[in-house]
Amino acid sequence: MPNASFKIWSNAKIFLMTEDAQHQFIESGAIVTHNKSIVWVGEVQDLPAQYIDNHSAYYDVEGRVVTPGLIDCHTHVVYGGNRANEFALKLQGVSYEEILLKGGGIHATVNATRALSEAELMQQSLKRIQQFIAQGVTSLEIKSGYGLDYQTERKMLRVAREIGKLFSLNISTTFLGAHVLPHEYKDKKAYLDYVTEEVLPNLVKENLVDAVDAFCDKIAFDAEELENLFSKAKDLSLNLKLHSDQLTNSKGAHLAGRFQAWSVDHLEHIDEVSIQILAHSNTVAVLLPGAYYYLQETQKPPVDLLRKYKIPIAIATDCNPGSSPCLSLLTALNMACVLFRLTPFEAFKAVTKNAAQALGWSDKKGQIKVGFDADFVVWDINHPDELSYYIGANPCVSVINGGEIIYDK
Amino acid sequence: MPNASFKIWSNAKIFLMTEDAQHQFIESGAIVTHNKSIVWVGEVQDLPAQYIDNHSAYYDVEGRVVTPGLIDCHTHVVYGGNRANEFALKLQGVSYEEILLKGGGIHATVNATRALSEAELMQQSLKRIQQFIAQGVTSLEIKSGYGLDYQTERKMLRVAREIGKLFSLNISTTFLGAHVLPHEYKDKKAYLDYVTEEVLPNLVKENLVDAVDAFCDKIAFDAEELENLFSKAKDLSLNLKLHSDQLTNSKGAHLAGRFQAWSVDHLEHIDEVSIQILAHSNTVAVLLPGAYYYLQETQKPPVDLLRKYKIPIAIATDCNPGSSPCLSLLTALNMACVLFRLTPFEAFKAVTKNAAQALGWSDKKGQIKVGFDADFVVWDINHPDELSYYIGANPCVSVINGGEIIYDK
Ligand SMILES: [Zn+2]
Ligand SMILES: [Zn+2]
Repeated sequence: MPNASFKIWSNAKIFLMTEDAQHQFIESGAIVTHNKSIVWVGEVQDLPAQYIDNHSAYYDVEGRVVTPGLIDCHTHVVYGGNRANEFALKLQGVSYEEILLKGGGIHATVNATRALSEAELMQQSLKRIQQFIAQGVTSLEIKSGYGLDYQTERKMLRVAREIGKLFSLNISTTFLGAHVLPHEYKDKKAYLDYVTEEVLPNLVKENLVDAVDAFCDKIAFDAEELENLFSKAKDLSLNLKLHSDQLTNSKGAHLAGRFQAWSVDHLEHIDEVSIQILAHSNTVAVLLPGAYYYLQETQKPPVDLLRKYKIPIAIATDCNPGSSPCLSLLTALNMACVLFRLTPFEAFKAVTKNAAQALGWSDKKGQIKVGFDADFVVWDINHPDELSYYIGANPCVSVINGGEIIYDK
Repeated sequence: MPNASFKIWSNAKIFLMTEDAQHQFIESGAIVTHNKSIVWVGEVQDLPAQYIDNHSAYYDVEGRVVTPGLIDCHTHVVYGGNRANEFALKLQGVSYEEILLKGGGIHATVNATRALSEAELMQQSLKRIQQFIAQGVTSLEIKSGYGLDYQTERKMLRVAREIGKLFSLNISTTFLGAHVLPHEYKDKKAYLDYVTEEVLPNLVKENLVDAVDAFCDKIAFDAEELENLFSKAKDLSLNLKLHSDQLTNSKGAHLAGRFQAWSVDHLEHIDEVSIQILAHSNTVAVLLPGAYYYLQETQKPPVDLLRKYKIPIAIATDCNPGSSPCLSLLTALNMACVLFRLTPFEAFKAVTKNAAQALGWSDKKGQIKVGFDADFVVWDINHPDELSYYIGANPCVSVINGGEIIYDK
């Protein structure tokens, strides 16, 4: 095998996250990668000679835990400015109406994002991205939705794509033009027509869009209004996601189910019939405990019903400047356990295997498995449950994405 | 001035945290240190020539925010093992009784801590300490209380002292022998007599104790039972702290107030009369949102009453393996805002100036001020409110303690 360049990570406690819950661990294991893929996983003692004889790099993990790279499948991490000031005003007792009058809320972020050059938007976003990578994230979904016009939505998605190249991260881009009605429009239909007929097709031409998302709730758009956009997305062979049932029972799952969406997200107010609909599609339920926490909601998503109908559950940060300024998927993991009562195993599956499914990557990410992408993380812990148990700790030692070390402590 | 060795940190946006709320910021400031102290603070343009001419080090902070070093005034960070397994079992629906039968709960930590050598206990604890320092902590209180016998309490406090030397951190040690009744005792009085007459005086002889704490609640000891221990502590010229009113209205403040304790901690169930007592002492109210969060409590500490009676409020992690496996004072800061509705300014004061008061360091720590210790942190943010606003981010760039850089990103 000439010019072979195998890399070996050895002496690892490997948490595979493969189907078979009985054999999740290899206690003293090794992973062999070739280019971007995993070519071998097993006990150190079984390492085939062909890899040992033809390796270009050898890493002794010293008995540490190795897991699949974390996948944050729902973020709004590209945006301008921040809303720390608004956070402070609210806690000082200033009403939401007054804050809106002072130019706060989501439109503050829209204005800040519109005002930045692409380079400035990149500059502000990359600091946040570095926080994610340093905590074990190898794949990240990034939504547009703070532009609400062609130029700014394009700018956001271009920055998202650029982040992927700059940091060797896997980025899945989502067009969220239907986030909220921008100030310059009075009519929802007129705006959605613009988004559907003008903005989306042009962004698709530039290959900036992996999926289309919309905010289906009383303060944004209802399922019927979004029908047209979803049809157009399907015509363009795009995948779908939906912010649904966060503040009210918006019945978004009916729309998402019909269109075989990748995911429905939030779900605090979803009902059982909607969950039955999800059970007939491959749609993932993405829970976002960060927003639930920041908004101090009291109605939790119906985890027991999701379990009953065997809906795959993913967890994400929902990183955004208003309702979830959370820059750590590990924090969301802990919150999923503490606030939503997921078990640490369910929660970890929710940021790896199931998060991969929510981004259409079931066949290549979220598991440590031959043929899958070589995306994994070395942690200074004894058991993966510790990642859920602690809050505010970062035991990440190194992050490997596509066979390359992209972070080393 | 021969052999002068001034250090200058220049071009900083300095958040002073001094008394005068009107002048908290120096927009373009400099700090001059000499040995362990701050000798000058002001506008860069006013920097006296004597410091410029006699400096041994000059750091350009590049316009970043500089704040006092963070002070975590309530931790149990020295312990053996962890209870991630118990965390998982609870979420799998195993009852607390079953967990206790399986050897879980606080006694699991007592057993694990007893079983370790001093070197092993140090090894396990220092990983946690590194997480604190990397997030801007310069001063840390560390409690004993997982030994419940002389040898192990001593071992814990020796490790705490050693941590101070190893990391150049300021450590305040607290003897918490009266944490819970150990398994080998059936009688509370007999145990408290042992703690009071044997354990405490011997630890004091070795200079291992800065303060004495006790757990005053229905599952531990009541105020009357603790009277003797507190009297003994006063005889030994030690300061006092008290875990009080966490699970029930335990009236610990009456005891704490009478003994002019440094702090009363938790306080979810404290009543107004108790708060009036605190108002007549210099006692700080230490709130611990991490434990409130992990235990998913619903009764919040009465922040409005604490404000009404002008009780200084501090915030701490309560870092411990059971009810608060929180390794980040920044996380506690955010939780103080989101869960307890403190303003970002109140919360930041609660981890600097007021936390210093809770450890008897009002005259030297928690503020950037001439004559105070040169403990401060450089952050990659635009405003200190961002430290409360984000969760899961670590914008710490460097940590200076006693004029020495102890962490640099
Ligand atoms: Zn979202
Ligand atoms: Zn405590």
